[in-house]
Order: sequence, then C-alpha cells, then structure tokens
Amino acid sequence: MKIKKLKPLLINIFKKHGLNIKHAEISSNALLNAELVGAYGHGLSRLKMYCDRINKKVINPKPKIKIKKISQSISHIDANNSIGFVAADIAIKKAIQNAKKTGIGLVAVKNSGHYGLSGYYAEQAVKKNLITMIFTNAPPAVAPHGALKSLFGTNPICFGTPTGSKIPFILDTSISMINRGKIRVAARNNQKIPEGVALDKFGKPTTDAKKALEGVQLPIAGFRGSGLAWMVDILSGVLTGGNHSGKVKDPFDDFSGPQNIGHLFITFKTNLFVNNFNNRIINNIKTIKNLPKIKGIKEIMYPGQNKYKRFKMNSKKEIKISQIIRKDLRILQN
Amino acid sequence: MKIKKLKPLLINIFKKHGLNIKHAEISSNALLNAELVGAYGHGLSRLKMYCDRINKKVINPKPKIKIKKISQSISHIDANNSIGFVAADIAIKKAIQNAKKTGIGLVAVKNSGHYGLSGYYAEQAVKKNLITMIFTNAPPAVAPHGALKSLFGTNPICFGTPTGSKIPFILDTSISMINRGKIRVAARNNQKIPEGVALDKFGKPTTDAKKALEGVQLPIAGFRGSGLAWMVDILSGVLTGGNHSGKVKDPFDDFSGPQNIGHLFITFKTNLFVNNFNNRIINNIKTIKNLPKIKGIKEIMYPGQNKYKRFKMNSKKEIKISQIIRKDLRILQN
Repeated sequence: MKIKKLKPLLINIFKKHGLNIKHAEISSNALLNAELVGAYGHGLSRLKMYCDRINKKVINPKPKIKIKKISQSISHIDANNSIGFVAADIAIKKAIQNAKKTGIGLVAVKNSGHYGLSGYYAEQAVKKNLITMIFTNAPPAVAPHGALKSLFGTNPICFGTPTGSKIPFILDTSISMINRGKIRVAARNNQKIPEGVALDKFGKPTTDAKKALEGVQLPIAGFRGSGLAWMVDILSGVLTGGNHSGKVKDPFDDFSGPQNIGHLFITFKTNLFVNNFNNRIINNIKTIKNLPKIKGIKEIMYPGQNKYKRFKMNSKKEIKISQIIRKDLRILQN
Repeated sequence: MKIKKLKPLLINIFKKHGLNIKHAEISSNALLNAELVGAYGHGLSRLKMYCDRINKKVINPKPKIKIKKISQSISHIDANNSIGFVAADIAIKKAIQNAKKTGIGLVAVKNSGHYGLSGYYAEQAVKKNLITMIFTNAPPAVAPHGALKSLFGTNPICFGTPTGSKIPFILDTSISMINRGKIRVAARNNQKIPEGVALDKFGKPTTDAKKALEGVQLPIAGFRGSGLAWMVDILSGVLTGGNHSGKVKDPFDDFSGPQNIGHLFITFKTNLFVNNFNNRIINNIKTIKNLPKIKGIKEIMYPGQNKYKRFKMNSKKEIKISQIIRKDLRILQN
C-alpha cells in the first residue's frame, strides 16, 4: 500500500479509538517509520495491540500529560498512561529544548507505554545537532545472570550523534542475544536457534527453540550484558517513577492494567567542549572506515547507516501488508 | 607487605618523580585500591610505567590543570598531561559538586592519561548519593566490527548507583571479549583461548592464542559491542577534545608523546523524579535476588558486590608483591 494512502488510514484508526488528531499523527508516523526502517516488530504488527489496549482502558487515549520543570535542564513527565509514542515525542522535544537552552537536558517519563524504537526519538535530537542517550524499560524477556526466570526487558541502550553528514550515528541495541519473536518462529518451523542465546527450563544451554520458549533468553556477554540490562532498568524504571524489576506488563498478553513504562532521555550540545566537533567526528568515522577489512566485508558501517539505507529504499516503494495486518486494518477502521 | 607500610613507600616514589604530596597521595590511593579489589592489571604492575612516562616527559608531574566552567552543571578540564589519577580525581569531584548544586553534572576531561578503574571514581559519586556514568578512552585493543585491525580501546562503560546499602552498584565493564594480557598468558602457556574472542591475522576466528596475538580481539556481542565501543570513543574522545579513533598511545610501549586520553563524567541526583529512590532500589535488588536460580548459583549478584567483598577481604590482609614488583619498588624509590 502507498504510504500516502496508508497514513490517513492509520490516523483515522487512532482517531476512531479516541486519540486527538495530533496524537493520532504522532502515533501513525512512528508506526510508519518502523515499517520503513524494516523494524516490522515495531510497526503495523502492533497496531491492533495498541487499539486493544485503548479499548480495554489500559492505554488512555485522552491523557492529561503533566510536564514538571525540575530545573532549566531537567524535566519530569507524567504521561498519564498515554500511548508511548506521544509521551516519548513530548519528552524528546522537551529534552531538545532543555539542551538548547542550557547545554544539557535530562528528561524522565513515567506512566508511559511501549514507544517503538528508541532510535526514532534519537534521530530527532541528532537532527537538532545534539548528542543523545535514551533508555527505556520493557516487559520481562531476559534472565538476570544466574537466574532461571526472565525479568529484564530487552532494555535497549540508545546513543545518537550528529556525524557531519546526513546519515546520523544511531546505536539502538537491545541487550538480549535474540528476540523472543525469532525463537517463536524457529519453534514453529522446527529450526534450531544459535548456541548461547537461551537456556531450557532447567537452566541448561539449549539450541532447541521449543525448549528455549519454556526456558529463558540470555543477555549479551553474560554478567556484563546482564549488568547493562540492570542499569537500564534502574535508569528508566527506578529513577523515573516507572515500573521496574519485571513489573512492566506484556502489552500483547496482559491487559490487567497500564504498563507504566519509564523512559530517560539525555541530550547535550556537541560544541560544549570543542569548537570543531563536526570535523572531529568526520575524521573519526573516516579513520575507522579506512581500516583494513575482513575478507568479504565491503564497508565498515557505523550504527544507523544500514537503517538509513533501508529507510531511503523503502520510502520509494509501497509498504507490503500481510493478510493478517490487512484484516486488522479493515476491522480497526470500522 | 602491609598497606600501612606500602602506602608511604608509593607516595615517596611519586614524590621523587616530581608529583606534589597531594597528587602523590591520590595516585597511591588509586593504585592501592586496584590491588585491594583484585584488579591487579591496574595496580602496582603499572607503577613503573607511570614513573617511566614521567621520566620520558610524557606525563607532566607538575601539571597546570585548568577547570573551565561552561555552566553551573557543565565543566571542561584540561589536565595538561597530568597523571590520569589526578585528572580523574578532580573531574569526579567537580561532577559531584555540579550535581549537588544543580541536580546534574557533566564534566569532560582532555589531555589526561590512564586513570585506572572507572569504578573507583564512580564509587566516590555513589558515596555522595549520586548516580553516575563514566566513559574513558584507551589505546587500541579491539577491532571495529568488520575491521582487521584494532582501533577501539577496551573502552569501559561504567555506571554506579546508590543501593540503600553500604555496597554500591558499580557496573564497570570493558567492551572487549577478553583482555590482551590473558591472551599473552595463554600464548606463553600454550593454552587455547575461548571461541569467539579473537580473529587471526586473516580475519578468521581462532582459539590459538599465538595466532590471536597476530590478529585482533573482538568486541562483546559483535556489531552491538562494536557500536558501544564506538559510542565510548565519541563520548570520551571526539566530544571532550581528547584523542580518539585509535590515536591514544599505549602507555607501556609508546613514549613518543602524551596519551591525551579523554574522559566523560555524568552525575545526577537520585531524588530528581521520585522521593523514595532508596526504597525503590532496595525493592529492585531484592526482587531480582529472589528469582529462582540456575543450579549451582548460590546468589544473584549485582555488579560491584564481588569487588566490594574482595576489597573487604583484602583490606585485612597484607598485599602480595611479586618479585618483579618488589624490584620495581626498590629501584623506583632510589
């Protein structure tokens, strides 16, 4: 389907579910962006879930979002269980504003929900010539090191910086070795999963996807990745007033209440300490790209480059819509 | 040797090499701390290197350190090629001061050197009831994803937070799968190294330690760890005015000039957004510790717990000093 046709359709669906036009637009743009960068797990496949949560009153379509000024640099947002996209959109804009004013911005959000890709918000800050770090909580997916139960979310760590070129450096990396969706697909197709990504229910390493589904997923790099996931849980949950320590509900399965996800946005100017940041980052990237390469590697890519390419490429094409999503779209707009 | 006896000896050595008493104390304390937490690679084994660098005039024993106020929250320190310990000590104290004053502190350092363990400085902020993130550059040790040459340092990511108990949460994790010292030891002893930690000089995975020494070390988690290392290079090098993109000199091998390492310290108050942070973090840790455990795991540990235990245990004992270091101590004090 053409984006031009799809976008008003999405906006209409969100409006029908009670969002105002602005919030419907913000949410539609975020979903479309996920499709265009190829992050389909954060795209249209979630539309029905968002609408279901609104219908079950665990997302508030008409939130009274409160922005509390802690200082010129620091703000706290109570998102009042808004759809996550809206909370994150307000938060990154506030973080940009604070950093532009004072050099640094720190914005915490509580009572929010799943907001899609951290990188999408990082891009907004980078376009305003700021460096940004973004942390968000997520439902249990990964076992802490030594534990036999998932508790940490995929808890992405996101970092973005201007590059002196039109392609931003956006690292947006989950701390999970593999996402649960991939294990589900492998189990359905009787495929093995890679070694070292999951344990069975007894805590033994397994490559059997079905056993992995009964067990737990592992963080990257063992104790270290587990520590990074824990850091994200503290920064986005404990600190902000959001849910933490495994209490964020799965948005697909658990309609017993709002998610109360927390997010943390840090932004700062690139020219705080040097007056030639652009030249410095251009040289940095050039030096690294010019390193000798492993056989078969054409180009050393920086984080965000591939995503940018996919975005450009996909923006020229129609968005492919599966039968399931086609059905969702049909039902949800009526 | 008893710490009581060792400490004045170290102070004396640094003083003999031109440091003032305060800088000699700061440097000695940092080295002793590394010994006590069991991070021997950052302890006495480096003493001779620091003195050699002073002798070769690539560490400045009498630095004129400039602290530039960018705002109430933000400071920039030009360490004038001081020994790294001194630069980092001033920087973390400034970051603490800024955060206490305004809620958040951001302090960048340039023209510094190797400062030992990030966690040591994080502890100082945590003791003042602040959350902290610390990034530092380091000499080339890890190949960017796809490259056949080391460029990133072990580039630690450090995060610390108060826990409501006397044992701080200090994550201080290198992004290298294995450190070069361990590969050197394995090569000497004809031992194999684990799979997935290094490539040979042709870019093929190897478990042969000798071949790994000719090749490159890998970052944790492939492209993701490479991205995290790149982030640290940008935050601590490109942003601060320090060296970056592989230009930090190896302190042991390269005396052709100062290291010009950059560091970045971020600090903020725990009670910016919630008034019960202590309860929240206590609950967080308790919940995670109470998870069912993998067979053989007695306790789920948070980052920093083991180090704290080692510190307590080792503080009661004498510090073991190898023949080599004994010789260093003898020569350096004369």
